[in-house]
Amino acid sequence: MKILLVGASGTIGQAVSAVLGQQHDIISAGKQRGDVLVDMTSPESIGAMYRKLGHIDAIVVTAGKVHFGELTQMTHTHYQVGLQDKLMGQINLALLGLNNLVDGGSITLTSGVLNHDPIRFGSGAAMVNGAIDGFVTSAAIEMPRGIRINAVSPTVLLESMDAYADYFKGYKPVPAADVALAYQKSIEGHQTGMVYQVGYCL
Amino acid sequence: MKILLVGASGTIGQAVSAVLGQQHDIISAGKQRGDVLVDMTSPESIGAMYRKLGHIDAIVVTAGKVHFGELTQMTHTHYQVGLQDKLMGQINLALLGLNNLVDGGSITLTSGVLNHDPIRFGSGAAMVNGAIDGFVTSAAIEMPRGIRINAVSPTVLLESMDAYADYFKGYKPVPAADVALAYQKSIEGHQTGMVYQVGYCL
Repeated sequence: MKILLVGASGTIGQAVSAVLGQQHDIISAGKQRGDVLVDMTSPESIGAMYRKLGHIDAIVVTAGKVHFGELTQMTHTHYQVGLQDKLMGQINLALLGLNNLVDGGSITLTSGVLNHDPIRFGSGAAMVNGAIDGFVTSAAIEMPRGIRINAVSPTVLLESMDAYADYFKGYKPVPAADVALAYQKSIEGHQTGMVYQVGYCL
Repeated sequence: MKILLVGASGTIGQAVSAVLGQQHDIISAGKQRGDVLVDMTSPESIGAMYRKLGHIDAIVVTAGKVHFGELTQMTHTHYQVGLQDKLMGQINLALLGLNNLVDGGSITLTSGVLNHDPIRFGSGAAMVNGAIDGFVTSAAIEMPRGIRINAVSPTVLLESMDAYADYFKGYKPVPAADVALAYQKSIEGHQTGMVYQVGYCL
């Protein structure tokens, strides 16, 4: 399969490449590096990338920024970061790529644990993760030509604990390699409309 | 209690007024009518409203617009309607009102069933509902001065079925009066961080 991977240089992106790159062609995409460059906050940039690509079998997004901050200090502008980057970036990468996807192709987006199991400073992330989960659940029933869509919702990564352990006290982290399996299930399996919780269970 | 009710003229707003107006002072708010006027898409308008109000015991929002449309026709701009109106409108009404709320006061927002039980044309609503649920779950653990926050997530209203029955085939609608009970529980009870599913259960 030909798989577009937006966010290939990130921790999850690298783990996805390691698992899927063995059997598939990965087209890496990112803002600063990759086989193709894309600014996911810009529908124009996304459109330009897709016009350069031919048919692909899968779109995977493991990228997206949100603002973390104390609730009472969070402003309208702080919430817009996550809404325009991690949320609309992923939605635009999904919908603007439909014409490139083959019949029965798949889209896999990334949310996260924080809308279910919240941390201090995480209201922007929780908002965006819930939005992605809701979008995927709904979009799945309207996808054309048998195209599938799922989300991967990992808990905090083992590889991120050096930087974030103070914010995730008591969380059991998950290795990125385990998270990558959920992307494999989404791409190589046949499910749609799923939110794969990885490393936690509600 | 003094309760600010944004969206008082809507179907849910009227039902909330009917239940809570018996024992509490309702300050109705809306874009075109109400005791106070507010454009919930504008942080400036929200700030101006709160500067005119004194201390209040509860903020309730039963308003918010989203765009409904076929998935493959939905654009970046269509999704922004729900993000800036129903989502950020409610978040800004919550956070900008914190200084007006008494210690132990409450905030009650409104999401809906569509992120769990999706319909055709509903991806914008599903996205926004998931975002509201996620925000409330997270914001609850950071609220200052014992202020609580919950969301009410109703299924389709009985009163809306004349207009929307075609989109909700097989859904069992719930009377707005039942939905109003969840707002009463949020305001008069002591729970926080809850998403009250009304008329459905996952």
